[in-house]
Amino acid sequence: MDQINNIEVVPCTNSNYLKPFRVHYNQNGTKKSWDFMRTHDSVSVLIFNTTSHCFVLVKQFRPAVYMCEWERTKPQPHETAEKADEGAAEAAGPESQEGPTVPEEKNSPPQPPASAGVTYELCAGLVDKPDLSLEEIARQEVLEECGYDVPASKLRRITSYRSGVGVTGAKQTMFYAEVSDDNCVGEGGGEPQEGELIEVVKVPLHEAMTFAYDESIPKTMGVIFSFIWFHNNMSPKYKISTNV
Amino acid sequence: MDQINNIEVVPCTNSNYLKPFRVHYNQNGTKKSWDFMRTHDSVSVLIFNTTSHCFVLVKQFRPAVYMCEWERTKPQPHETAEKADEGAAEAAGPESQEGPTVPEEKNSPPQPPASAGVTYELCAGLVDKPDLSLEEIARQEVLEECGYDVPASKLRRITSYRSGVGVTGAKQTMFYAEVSDDNCVGEGGGEPQEGELIEVVKVPLHEAMTFAYDESIPKTMGVIFSFIWFHNNMSPKYKISTNV
Repeated sequence: MDQINNIEVVPCTNSNYLKPFRVHYNQNGTKKSWDFMRTHDSVSVLIFNTTSHCFVLVKQFRPAVYMCEWERTKPQPHETAEKADEGAAEAAGPESQEGPTVPEEKNSPPQPPASAGVTYELCAGLVDKPDLSLEEIARQEVLEECGYDVPASKLRRITSYRSGVGVTGAKQTMFYAEVSDDNCVGEGGGEPQEGELIEVVKVPLHEAMTFAYDESIPKTMGVIFSFIWFHNNMSPKYKISTNV
Repeated sequence: MDQINNIEVVPCTNSNYLKPFRVHYNQNGTKKSWDFMRTHDSVSVLIFNTTSHCFVLVKQFRPAVYMCEWERTKPQPHETAEKADEGAAEAAGPESQEGPTVPEEKNSPPQPPASAGVTYELCAGLVDKPDLSLEEIARQEVLEECGYDVPASKLRRITSYRSGVGVTGAKQTMFYAEVSDDNCVGEGGGEPQEGELIEVVKVPLHEAMTFAYDESIPKTMGVIFSFIWFHNNMSPKYKISTNV
């Protein structure tokens, strides 16, 4: 279990990663503007190990998720209730105006355990190498994060969709990869020199649907959707428990 | 069809909506930091009209999505390839450092049509009213955005998950609402005074699975997942085409 401490939060006007832009435009003759952030498209991969009949996920501490829970433990200041774009909510766009505050040492409630910031996710990566195909980028992520070496040609495209429509609007493409123990060439875990601390976890096939709908297990929608996609599309090939 | 023109993009350091924060922390004794944004949790609602046997979705112009497509039409500058958090990609976190540039009037490629920024989404809203239950907030969104008045008690919780784990980490809860034409009390469309220009669209049940996997129709993962959830959980009650 990770140990998280010495938390300090500061406003950040010069982030290398989060750079808001504003677009002014006319929509049907009406002047409008919108704040957004540019991001790369991305790929995600549902990995199924045919030797152990397990899904292969990644699990990691997510500071942004942790900060959500950390905020919940604090007394809520009076909300100033500036109106944000409610329509952006499906993508959970960052429309909030109430920022976190620096923690006070005195009278603060106990901070949440590190586990409050850990999520289960599909293996995934940014599309930031223009010379590589989506399949090739997905292949690299499967190798780096999960330790399986599978040819790009074996990746099956599931579908694509828009993520973060309120703020980034990037396109994500989801793939399915069947691997076996024979394809396992390393431990995965991401690139520690980039600060990635990724744990590779296996979810047995017969537990997958229970896992998907267990709200006590923090996860992304990609995990839930892809497990159900597998259930619907691969069940003639592999048995999966459907008692949910 | 919306008309979009007079597009101008500027950096934005004082957004009311996108306010980056930086958290410094120790993870297992190692000093780390992460840029994130605070946001509200959200709800989304799969609406099924039992009179017309249609799903009820919202469709709107998303500036962030449009800007993604707008960027694609431009010649790519040499990428400086600062390393970002690749692990955040499943949530398509805004890790990019290359910002959009102001469009040049001369020699610019033609701008994409407005349709390039339009997405199909579930009815959704931010959890920004602390005194209301999730069900009550969902109920209000169904009324405001889609014009159906259904009691909160008739909303069925599907599940919850984390969105934007790299940047916001907020929790989204998805509901299912059955409505009939009798519940239709208005046109929906959101709140125009807040700039919402939401079109309510119906997807017939028998077209739903084709719609879900048609990548030429821009949509969120919530639409795809919820249609499949319906197929798996409501098909004993309602027939749905499965020829996908």
